[in-house]
Amino acid sequence: MGLILHEDPRSGNCYKIRLTAVHLGLPLEFRAYDVMKAETRTPDFLANVNADGRIPVLQDGDKFLPESNAACVYLADGSRLIPGDRFGRADMLRWMFWEQYSHEPNVATVRFWIAFLGEDRLNDLQRTLLPVKRELGRAALALMDRHLQGRDWFVGDRLSLADIALYAYTHVAGDGGFCLGDYPAVGEWMQRVAAHPRHVPMTRETPLAVGVGSD
Amino acid sequence: MGLILHEDPRSGNCYKIRLTAVHLGLPLEFRAYDVMKAETRTPDFLANVNADGRIPVLQDGDKFLPESNAACVYLADGSRLIPGDRFGRADMLRWMFWEQYSHEPNVATVRFWIAFLGEDRLNDLQRTLLPVKRELGRAALALMDRHLQGRDWFVGDRLSLADIALYAYTHVAGDGGFCLGDYPAVGEWMQRVAAHPRHVPMTRETPLAVGVGSD
Repeated sequence: MGLILHEDPRSGNCYKIRLTAVHLGLPLEFRAYDVMKAETRTPDFLANVNADGRIPVLQDGDKFLPESNAACVYLADGSRLIPGDRFGRADMLRWMFWEQYSHEPNVATVRFWIAFLGEDRLNDLQRTLLPVKRELGRAALALMDRHLQGRDWFVGDRLSLADIALYAYTHVAGDGGFCLGDYPAVGEWMQRVAAHPRHVPMTRETPLAVGVGSD
Repeated sequence: MGLILHEDPRSGNCYKIRLTAVHLGLPLEFRAYDVMKAETRTPDFLANVNADGRIPVLQDGDKFLPESNAACVYLADGSRLIPGDRFGRADMLRWMFWEQYSHEPNVATVRFWIAFLGEDRLNDLQRTLLPVKRELGRAALALMDRHLQGRDWFVGDRLSLADIALYAYTHVAGDGGFCLGDYPAVGEWMQRVAAHPRHVPMTRETPLAVGVGSD
C-alpha cells in the first residue's frame, strides 16, 4: 500500500505535504474531506484516521501521522530538503515550529475566516479576534521579511522544508486581506520557491470530488 | 564556549530544554530574563538574541536557536531521546507540533494568566478567551489521556522528547485550574516521567537572580 494523504485541498497545511512529495518524486493518493461540513469529525474519522479530528493526516500502510510539518519531515527524512548539519536541521525545525505557533494561527486563520467562512458570518468571538490576528499576522510577515533580507532561503543555501512550510499560507495571505506588497523580501523569496523546477501550485486544475479523490 | 540557555525559569518551554540537557548529561549555563518586565523585548535582546522577542533561546557559541522544541531536538540529535526509526522520529515530532499548536496555547497560557498575571488583572480580551482556552485545554488533556491508555510513553517503548515536551506544561496544569485528577492515564504517565533516574523538577531550590544566573 502506498502513501495516502487525508486532506482538504483548500488547506495550506495539506498543500505542504503534497508539495514536499512532489519535490521528492513520491506518489501520493488522496482522500478529500470538506472541513466546512465537519467531515473530519465523524465517528469513523475519529476512530480510524485521527482522534484529534483534524487534517492533514499522512497514511503509510497501517500507520497514520497527523500534523502537517511532522508529515513533511517523514517524507523528506534523509533527503536534500533537510539540511545535512545538526544546527541546520534544528534551525529548519525552529522555523517550522514558529510557523505553527506564530504564523498559521494568524495568517491561515484570517484567510479561512475571510475567504471561506465570510466576514459577515463570523461569530462574536471571531469578530473580536480578527483585528488581533491581523496584527499578529502582519508581525509574522514582517519578521519573515527581516529574516529574508540578504538571504535566499530560510535556512542554509537551498530550499528546505522550512521554506515549503512557510510558503503554504504566506503565498495565499492576500486571501485574508494581508498586503504582501508590504514585504518585498518575502515577495522575492516566494518567486524563488515558485521558480523551482519541481514546484506545483496549490490550486489544482481539476477540482477534487469531495469524499474520495485522486490526483 | 558552552551551551547557554536564555530563559525565564518559570517557563515550561525553558524547562523542556533544561530537562533534555540533564537527561543527556549536557552542561548548560543560564541567562535569566523576567518576561513580566519585558526583558526579552529590549533592543539589545531583539538585536542579539531573538528578533522575535521570545524565550527560550538556546545559544551554542555564536549560533542562536529559538523555539523550545527545536532546541530539544538540537541537543538530543542522535541520542536515545529520539526514536531510531523513521516513523517513530516523525511521530515524536507530531506530538511536539501538537503540543505547540493545541496544548501550550491553552494549558500554558491559562496557567500564565491565572498564576502569574492573576485572574483579576486580565484585560477584556483575556477574560473573553479564558473559558475558550480552558475548554481547549481540557480537550488537549483528554486527548493525551486517551492516547496513553495502554501505553507507557507517547511514542515507542521509552521516554522521548515527545514526553519531555508534553510533561513541561501538563504537570503544572493545576496552576491554571485544570483538574489533573480527571485524566488518570496522564497521571500515571507523569509519575513514570518523574521516576526516571535523570529527572529533575521544574522548581529550583535556589531562585535565580534576574539578569545572569547559573545552576
